[in-house]
Amino acid sequence: MILAFYSANRGLGAWEPALRQAMPEVELRAAPDLGDLEEIEAALVWRPPPGWLAALPNLKLILSQGAGVDHILTDPLRPRHVPIVRLVDPYMTRSMVEYVTFQVLRLHLKEPEFRRQQQDHVWRQLVPPSARDRRIGILGLGELGAACAAALVALGFDVAGWSRSPKQLPCVTSFAGEAAFDAFLARTDILVCLIPLTAATRGILGRATFDRLPRGASVINAGRGGHLAEADLLAALASGQIAEAVLDVFETEPLPADHAFWDHPRIVVTPHVAALTNPVTAAEAIAANLRRLAAGEDFPDRIDPDAGY
Amino acid sequence: MILAFYSANRGLGAWEPALRQAMPEVELRAAPDLGDLEEIEAALVWRPPPGWLAALPNLKLILSQGAGVDHILTDPLRPRHVPIVRLVDPYMTRSMVEYVTFQVLRLHLKEPEFRRQQQDHVWRQLVPPSARDRRIGILGLGELGAACAAALVALGFDVAGWSRSPKQLPCVTSFAGEAAFDAFLARTDILVCLIPLTAATRGILGRATFDRLPRGASVINAGRGGHLAEADLLAALASGQIAEAVLDVFETEPLPADHAFWDHPRIVVTPHVAALTNPVTAAEAIAANLRRLAAGEDFPDRIDPDAGY
Repeated sequence: MILAFYSANRGLGAWEPALRQAMPEVELRAAPDLGDLEEIEAALVWRPPPGWLAALPNLKLILSQGAGVDHILTDPLRPRHVPIVRLVDPYMTRSMVEYVTFQVLRLHLKEPEFRRQQQDHVWRQLVPPSARDRRIGILGLGELGAACAAALVALGFDVAGWSRSPKQLPCVTSFAGEAAFDAFLARTDILVCLIPLTAATRGILGRATFDRLPRGASVINAGRGGHLAEADLLAALASGQIAEAVLDVFETEPLPADHAFWDHPRIVVTPHVAALTNPVTAAEAIAANLRRLAAGEDFPDRIDPDAGY
Repeated sequence: MILAFYSANRGLGAWEPALRQAMPEVELRAAPDLGDLEEIEAALVWRPPPGWLAALPNLKLILSQGAGVDHILTDPLRPRHVPIVRLVDPYMTRSMVEYVTFQVLRLHLKEPEFRRQQQDHVWRQLVPPSARDRRIGILGLGELGAACAAALVALGFDVAGWSRSPKQLPCVTSFAGEAAFDAFLARTDILVCLIPLTAATRGILGRATFDRLPRGASVINAGRGGHLAEADLLAALASGQIAEAVLDVFETEPLPADHAFWDHPRIVVTPHVAALTNPVTAAEAIAANLRRLAAGEDFPDRIDPDAGY
């Protein structure tokens, strides 16, 4: 079997040895040296240019290099009959759990205020509420959202989640569908965005959402830059409706050096590192999917293009 | 029964309603209005002045307002025959677990580097190792150390602890006694100090310890200011032997406004907030100990003055 590789922002680099070790029987071809396009049956991609996938006439499987597939679905020319499989890697899930746990604790424990106090040489003991009185709201209770919810429950937080369909997760209050969105927001002190980016969720972190949170709530975006209406966030921070924001993803990445977020005293910027794909561990999941393709089996992590995830 | 109250840094304030609610049968007297000293059988104290306890001729129980008792044992005049009981409060333990989990994740996830990058508008993805490859070393595996170790194990870290006697904790490597100290330090990337302050542990965070850690290790002090040799830390940070330090406790508190720690780019200062005593929850533990005193029972959290904890 021949696997074509394309990434918009990193080379084959660490992928090559990882993929060769996990699947020695597969021939790897990195763009642009793809040889005879008719021979290619599978593609492992990150943000492929429009038409790139359509140029592979015998393509049978599209594998995402990340947990999200929005970077594939935005290609209007992508072949509609080819299954798309997202990357589910326990390593990546753990990485997201660490990031979200850390950023929630940062906001819960008032770290931004202590940092400002340190800058001003101020010694003032601020007392956070008990974790059980801190209401965390997770937008999206899929693979990543559910794992983060469990870690926050273990620390004693009051955790709820919002998703399209109801979820049964231990000690996590489930809010489902449009009708429950306002109630979910009204009880959320720290909002964590981990939802897939689709037409329905684009801009979900915008004024209408911010206005429905309790005054002084905080926001963590570890989803996609497209979830956030940037001007709305700046306005909500200026008015005090939102107290602090932690952003790992941005509409334009890398975040331009002159962007207002960098110097904002109430925004923490991290460079899309919450759940970086690790080729060594990801290669195992990819190899398993190629074996399913060879055996004619179905793909458990196949996405529904109509839902967008 | 009559309980005398003394605190060197806070008034009766929130204590009064909490204590009255938890133990309506006890008469509370706050220094300096102690009335007839001969009537006082128990004292609830934080850093009492030398001789203050000795002036209570019928004292039968000394209760600490915090987890540590170093602030009592340093009084050379304290009555040697009176049991000293430290404060063990699940709320305080949870608070310490949150603080230590947060600060370990801060160092693990390279937050200090990302913060400096944000200041410089630099977008550079730094990849931390897996948690299982990050070696956390906890100095002190008592009530607080054991709880923090369990939370870090749950996040997947490689956790060890050092204590005077060997401990059996799930997935925590136990190093015990002087002979094992060097081996403990040699395998520790992030050192967390939660040990009681005694003559034996004063200055334990000093050059000899720093030099035995792997180069570039980091230190979190949530014990006591007396554990840290401040000049040694500044030297170890300057040489790169220690990469980052997070300090919640200081030899002099509040930390003086002109202290070098405030502006150090590799030191995080928090104002002794890791496990603040919460009078509402602490009052329950205190009431239970006064009931034990009235019933002539022993105290499970009684400390050994010779050990110092």
